Amino acid sequence: MNAKISDKVINRLTLYHCILQEFLARGEEFISSKQIAKLLHIDDSQVRKDISVLNNSGKCRVGYIVKELKSCIEKTLGFKKQKNACIIGAGNLGSALAKYDSFANYGLNIVALVDTDKKKISGMVNGKRIYDLSDFTRVVAEHGIDIAILTVPKEFTQSTADIVVDAGVKYIWNFAPVVLNVPDDVQVWNENLVGNFLQFTYSI
Amino acid sequence: MNAKISDKVINRLTLYHCILQEFLARGEEFISSKQIAKLLHIDDSQVRKDISVLNNSGKCRVGYIVKELKSCIEKTLGFKKQKNACIIGAGNLGSALAKYDSFANYGLNIVALVDTDKKKISGMVNGKRIYDLSDFTRVVAEHGIDIAILTVPKEFTQSTADIVVDAGVKYIWNFAPVVLNVPDDVQVWNENLVGNFLQFTYSI
Repeated sequence: MNAKISDKVINRLTLYHCILQEFLARGEEFISSKQIAKLLHIDDSQVRKDISVLNNSGKCRVGYIVKELKSCIEKTLGFKKQKNACIIGAGNLGSALAKYDSFANYGLNIVALVDTDKKKISGMVNGKRIYDLSDFTRVVAEHGIDIAILTVPKEFTQSTADIVVDAGVKYIWNFAPVVLNVPDDVQVWNENLVGNFLQFTYSI
Repeated sequence: MNAKISDKVINRLTLYHCILQEFLARGEEFISSKQIAKLLHIDDSQVRKDISVLNNSGKCRVGYIVKELKSCIEKTLGFKKQKNACIIGAGNLGSALAKYDSFANYGLNIVALVDTDKKKISGMVNGKRIYDLSDFTRVVAEHGIDIAILTVPKEFTQSTADIVVDAGVKYIWNFAPVVLNVPDDVQVWNENLVGNFLQFTYSI
C-alpha cells in the first residue's frame, strides 16, 4: 500500500473498480481511460493520472486490461485485508448496511449487530445475529471487532459511542448527524450525509 | 452564496453546524475554534480558515457567537433553498433516508417514495406516500421533484436511472455501488459508501 493516495483518488478508484466489474461481467477484455471518464463525466487525463499511482502493468495499445487493472486497484487499496465490523442499531439503516453484500468484496466483514430492543435481540439480518447492546464487550472479544458502525438515533449516538470506546474499539463509522466526543486514540469517520448532499446541491 | 467553497470545506462546515446545534441546545452562547477543533480532532487554524469564508460577523474576544455562526453557515450553504426529492426504492435504506428528519433542516424535502412492490405501494413511511414507479413522471410533475434518490438494488439501478432521466429529473443521488450511464445534462452524486469506507480504513 502507498500511504500517499489522497481521499479523492481513493474515492475515484473505487468508482473505476465498479466500472471494471461491470465490464468484466459483460466479457469486455479492454477499457480505455476515455470510456471510464465518459461514464463519470470527468476528464480522461484525470483517469490516467489516478491510474498512474497504481503500478499497473496491464496497459496495452487499446487501453487497460480490465482484469489486471481491477486486481491492481484491489491490491493497492487493500481489499484483501479483512476488517470485522459490528453494526450498532438494527433499525432501517443498520439493516440496510447489514444487507449490503458488496462490502465483503472490499474487506469489510459485518459479523454482527447489536440493539437494545428486546424484540430484535437474537434475531438475524442477512445471516448476521443481533445481540444485546449490554453484551457488546463480549461480542467485540468473540468476533474480533475492529470497527463499530453507529446507526442509532441521534440522541443516543454519544452514549453509544462511549460504550464502544469502553469496549476498546478504535474505529467508529458514524452515520448520525452528531459530532462525537471520543479520546484521541479513537478514529471517527463521520458519514456526513447532509454534508454530501450539500456538496451535491450547492449549485442547484 | 460563494461558488468557490470546496467540497471539503462544505463538509467540515456542516460538521461545525452539528456542533453549534449541540452548543445551542445546551444554552452555550460562545464557542472557540479550539473547542470545535478538539471535537473533530483537527487543527484549530483549519477551523478559523474555514470560518473565514463565511463573512461571519459574530466574532468576539471569547470566540464566535454560536447563534450567529450557525445562521451564517445556514445562509452561506443555502439551507433555506428548498429542494424536493423522491426516494426510489422503499426498502431498508430508502425507508431509513425517509425517516431522516434532519434533512429538512438543510433544505432537502423528501416528499414521496416510489417502488415496484405492490405490497408497499400506497403505504406511508414517516408521513410520505409510496407511489408506483410506473407513476413516477406524474409524481415528478405533481410534487415538483428536483432530485431522485436511488436506493434500489444494484441490478435495477441503471434501468431505474433511465426512468428518472426520461421523467426530466436532472439530479440523481445514487446510493448503489454502480456507475450510471446518463446524459451530460444530468448530474449524479455517487454516495460511494465503499469508497468512504476505504478512505477511513486505508490505514488500519
